[in-house]
Amino acid sequence: MNLTANALLALGASPVMAHAEEEVEEMVGLASALVLNIGTLSAAWIGSMLKAAAAARRRGIPIVLDPVGAGATRLRTETSRRILEEARPAVLRGNASEIRALFHAERETKGVDSRHAAEAALEAARGLSAEFGCAVSVSGPVDVIVLGDAVVRVANGHPLMPRVTGLGCTASALTGAFAAVNPAPLAAAVHAMAVMGIAGEMAGEGAAGPASFQTRFLDALHLLSEKDIAARLKMEPA
Amino acid sequence: MNLTANALLALGASPVMAHAEEEVEEMVGLASALVLNIGTLSAAWIGSMLKAAAAARRRGIPIVLDPVGAGATRLRTETSRRILEEARPAVLRGNASEIRALFHAERETKGVDSRHAAEAALEAARGLSAEFGCAVSVSGPVDVIVLGDAVVRVANGHPLMPRVTGLGCTASALTGAFAAVNPAPLAAAVHAMAVMGIAGEMAGEGAAGPASFQTRFLDALHLLSEKDIAARLKMEPA
Amino acid sequence: MNLTANALLALGASPVMAHAEEEVEEMVGLASALVLNIGTLSAAWIGSMLKAAAAARRRGIPIVLDPVGAGATRLRTETSRRILEEARPAVLRGNASEIRALFHAERETKGVDSRHAAEAALEAARGLSAEFGCAVSVSGPVDVIVLGDAVVRVANGHPLMPRVTGLGCTASALTGAFAAVNPAPLAAAVHAMAVMGIAGEMAGEGAAGPASFQTRFLDALHLLSEKDIAARLKMEPA
Repeated sequence: MNLTANALLALGASPVMAHAEEEVEEMVGLASALVLNIGTLSAAWIGSMLKAAAAARRRGIPIVLDPVGAGATRLRTETSRRILEEARPAVLRGNASEIRALFHAERETKGVDSRHAAEAALEAARGLSAEFGCAVSVSGPVDVIVLGDAVVRVANGHPLMPRVTGLGCTASALTGAFAAVNPAPLAAAVHAMAVMGIAGEMAGEGAAGPASFQTRFLDALHLLSEKDIAARLKMEPA
Repeated sequence: MNLTANALLALGASPVMAHAEEEVEEMVGLASALVLNIGTLSAAWIGSMLKAAAAARRRGIPIVLDPVGAGATRLRTETSRRILEEARPAVLRGNASEIRALFHAERETKGVDSRHAAEAALEAARGLSAEFGCAVSVSGPVDVIVLGDAVVRVANGHPLMPRVTGLGCTASALTGAFAAVNPAPLAAAVHAMAVMGIAGEMAGEGAAGPASFQTRFLDALHLLSEKDIAARLKMEPA
Repeated sequence: MNLTANALLALGASPVMAHAEEEVEEMVGLASALVLNIGTLSAAWIGSMLKAAAAARRRGIPIVLDPVGAGATRLRTETSRRILEEARPAVLRGNASEIRALFHAERETKGVDSRHAAEAALEAARGLSAEFGCAVSVSGPVDVIVLGDAVVRVANGHPLMPRVTGLGCTASALTGAFAAVNPAPLAAAVHAMAVMGIAGEMAGEGAAGPASFQTRFLDALHLLSEKDIAARLKMEPA
């Protein structure tokens, strides 16, 4: 939560993290997007997430779901599918194992690592996009973002990124920030992954290890210019 | 919580974070000050905070309240006012939106950002100080600290400070540390804001962005000398 | 939790943090070791910890207990002793105050600081090792690790280590990672403390304060080579 809040602040967004059932609807009333992240899952939080989602739908603001650890436990797979059904997010953002688990109801996640390249979740991403009408953003060395028949790939990033906890959550948070200002879910998801990957590349140049990488990554999010993006973007189709 | 604990350790204080209702009274028995922060609010935590406050009052140790997000939701505004009434803190430390919301019972906070300069909360700070007998410390580019008729302004700080999550909470934590060793709430609150601002200035010189700023800020808290304070302090009245 | 996850990732391990009673058994089913840390204690977490421990025992994977704040409150002392009795961890890892409190049922911890050198807990460590059949790892400027009659001391480390919150928890997490791949609890505990201390020494060279120390510490965990360990290890008996 701390890293995602700092990433959003670095980008110029305005994050609030809340989970009390008594106030989530009111908090959503102040928000331009809602990100549901099941990382710190418990029974009480599920109720709060569904309440927040209902409030977001009433207000018509976009919802992003990060199904952290889907496939690792039944609770996570089932909760994620329940949120997909009830909340109808604009974007589902996970790694390949999570996306495959949600589609195939496979039990194959080892922790929150992804054992698959994003490409290996392409069929699952297409299936979930068709089933739930959302964009599906699968992170990996090459990110794959799907909406209906459209597929976009973003090849930016750095090998130290999986060595920092919370960068997947940060990708989801940034997707929410872009969705708040861009009504097209596919474009919002693509822009978020491009900015993540480009900031990661800028951070990786000169990082001694994962912690200096994280510091440089947040600084890069703050410093990132349109020129950096134009010079570094590796996207297909361009 | 992590940042505030590290800031207190950097300063030489000895932080403990606890929230279980079963143990907060005992924990308070070991403490020299109690900081109540409603950032991660839930119903269970409110009970723990009130219990901890009662124990602190019995022991006569100072209480600091950080009404995070007051004005954003009724739960936060009402909980903050309830704690003010029951706990009678020595210092109330918030941003201008929160302080105004607590005084006017206005609903005007956008998340945990402050849309007002601290000066815009001067009347509210005076009112709350009169109503609850506490010092009120309003953070902003120029901090305004009030107790009764006295007003002190501290103009230290750096523009990157609002780009790091948890620095408001850190200001409250430091206020608690100073209150633990200084029986005068106004002085404790002023010293905390001065140290925050001066460490912020030292950190800002050479920071590439908000994350390197945060690293440099904690290092500066650790390295800060009386000479740094004497050379940099911008306080009114001097 | 964030720091320990990042330390494990830096080391090449694969951390998952979970606390929901509904899923801890399944999560343990994917794990190679279980670390129980009572830092963020609440009644609900105790039930989850005992369930997770039972699952770990059924699977025969090692358990590490970090009795954070034992001695500070009855809840912490009693919960730690209950976990020792029911979970039968392979390693108990704490500071001298916590280990003494668990042995003597003394109430002597001031927060989570240790007021004693590890050596002052040698008798307590021996007693707990005899009572519960586990290795006991006491951190301090010189770490003392005990199993039955065997005592190993590790003298690596850096004075900034106590100025960073969560480094004790990180020592326990690393002990879990080493226990996952080493069936000898004493060796696993010793290796973890040696790696902690050596990474701390490498981090301390050139750190300006506790925050740059923390960044350099995580980077050092990532960069650490067998050569670094061979060159720096201060262990007795060698």
